[in-house]
Amino acid sequence: MTPPNDRFVSETDFAVRYAETDAMGVVHHASYLVYFEEGRSHYMRHLGRDYSLIEKSGLRLPVTEIGVRFAGSLTYGERVRIHTWVADSRSRAIKFAYEVSSMQSEEILVTGFTQHMWTDLNGKVCRAPDELQDLLTQPPA
Amino acid sequence: MTPPNDRFVSETDFAVRYAETDAMGVVHHASYLVYFEEGRSHYMRHLGRDYSLIEKSGLRLPVTEIGVRFAGSLTYGERVRIHTWVADSRSRAIKFAYEVSSMQSEEILVTGFTQHMWTDLNGKVCRAPDELQDLLTQPPA
Amino acid sequence: MTPPNDRFVSETDFAVRYAETDAMGVVHHASYLVYFEEGRSHYMRHLGRDYSLIEKSGLRLPVTEIGVRFAGSLTYGERVRIHTWVADSRSRAIKFAYEVSSMQSEEILVTGFTQHMWTDLNGKVCRAPDELQDLLTQPPA
Amino acid sequence: MTPPNDRFVSETDFAVRYAETDAMGVVHHASYLVYFEEGRSHYMRHLGRDYSLIEKSGLRLPVTEIGVRFAGSLTYGERVRIHTWVADSRSRAIKFAYEVSSMQSEEILVTGFTQHMWTDLNGKVCRAPDELQDLLTQPPA
Repeated sequence: MTPPNDRFVSETDFAVRYAETDAMGVVHHASYLVYFEEGRSHYMRHLGRDYSLIEKSGLRLPVTEIGVRFAGSLTYGERVRIHTWVADSRSRAIKFAYEVSSMQSEEILVTGFTQHMWTDLNGKVCRAPDELQDLLTQPPA
Repeated sequence: MTPPNDRFVSETDFAVRYAETDAMGVVHHASYLVYFEEGRSHYMRHLGRDYSLIEKSGLRLPVTEIGVRFAGSLTYGERVRIHTWVADSRSRAIKFAYEVSSMQSEEILVTGFTQHMWTDLNGKVCRAPDELQDLLTQPPA
Repeated sequence: MTPPNDRFVSETDFAVRYAETDAMGVVHHASYLVYFEEGRSHYMRHLGRDYSLIEKSGLRLPVTEIGVRFAGSLTYGERVRIHTWVADSRSRAIKFAYEVSSMQSEEILVTGFTQHMWTDLNGKVCRAPDELQDLLTQPPA
Repeated sequence: MTPPNDRFVSETDFAVRYAETDAMGVVHHASYLVYFEEGRSHYMRHLGRDYSLIEKSGLRLPVTEIGVRFAGSLTYGERVRIHTWVADSRSRAIKFAYEVSSMQSEEILVTGFTQHMWTDLNGKVCRAPDELQDLLTQPPA
């Protein structure tokens, strides 16, 4: 799941929170979905299109499918780094891909994707405006 | 913060979830606010007045103040037991009190309160209907 | 991902917690991983083998892969019902499958799996004792 | 609960995460304890003393009491700003105070404190080394 060469890839990093760890001493696996969401939010903010703006425009982007693979783990005291890109974009659906590593090493620890569909406020599937589709898939100038 | 003798006290219990633990091997302190909320929800359901029904009637009950004292901790594998009661109820505000223990012992581990105000859907403070005030403070028949 | 006929399927149910909802008004997608974990814990407790007992015996069962599909959503006020079974069990790995529905309807809302590996306390992959493999895959007498 | 003039006050800010919101459309009250923890972690990192380093030195700092007051709320799309300082420090206990506001306004939305005690790895109350007490209460040079 390496990002294609022509694809905009956003990078963000932040500290592991103690509340995200579990009794095994590492970040709980469910927290990575929140990290993915943080990566996705950062991706959109970077393009000047915060998800809250999308919501205000009457569109929603609920998750329809998730896949995650765990090759390693993070502990408190480390910084999380996430690379996020659009793996696929269609008129009614969009797929984000993620790579999570620790700032302290180059090793990729967790990879995954989230598949979303565009809906209106009533949850009915709809077509995303072309300009929004373009914005989300084209690198910032 | 012992419940008065004439007061209805609800009791509920459930298993500690692994996701609620942290790297110290015990339930993370923030999880107790979720436990309190579970106690509060159970209290209301027991009176036949689920909080979702309150929301549907156009009222909300946001938290305005929280106090918690920790004397011990819970670990994964234990069952949480919560006693919940109304410590104070006024026309525009209500205060719930909580005692958390482990089903495996009688010891009280965490105590606390949450203070709430009644608001309409726009967040404006309002007066709770008398019947709702009565319902929440009187024991079920 | 229907459970095979010969397979033990555990069922548990509990109320949606307000903290698990998000600004879309429904249960946040990451909460379903916690629901899966609750289903898995219930499955093990039902077999008399709480995960905390597994941890005490020096074994751990970290998650290596997750897959989730969302066909609907849950809201506050509903009760979650989870069916959990073992989809595959090998000497060094085990795969659990899940179906989430609302107690208020028969419709299956979310399905998924979690793949785990058996490790020792140092995170080294190891072989689960035969009796544990048998216990987890055979229905209770 | 204004910080004294002579006191070091750390400031950090980060984006509200969607998972932290609830069905009322605002950040769930329990998330503020995680924000406080983030403020506390940042305070310690700023002094070159990450909490993970404290843990490695055989000390722990569990929470013994919490108090929070809510005057307003945060929504997705906003950035959280937290001011954190040490309100009181003794040989066996330390109290942190917090002010949470939105980067988009100057208004203070949530204030609170967390009281902690110093313990060894077995949870026995102990005396913090003088150098650690000094480090945590004196401004960085």
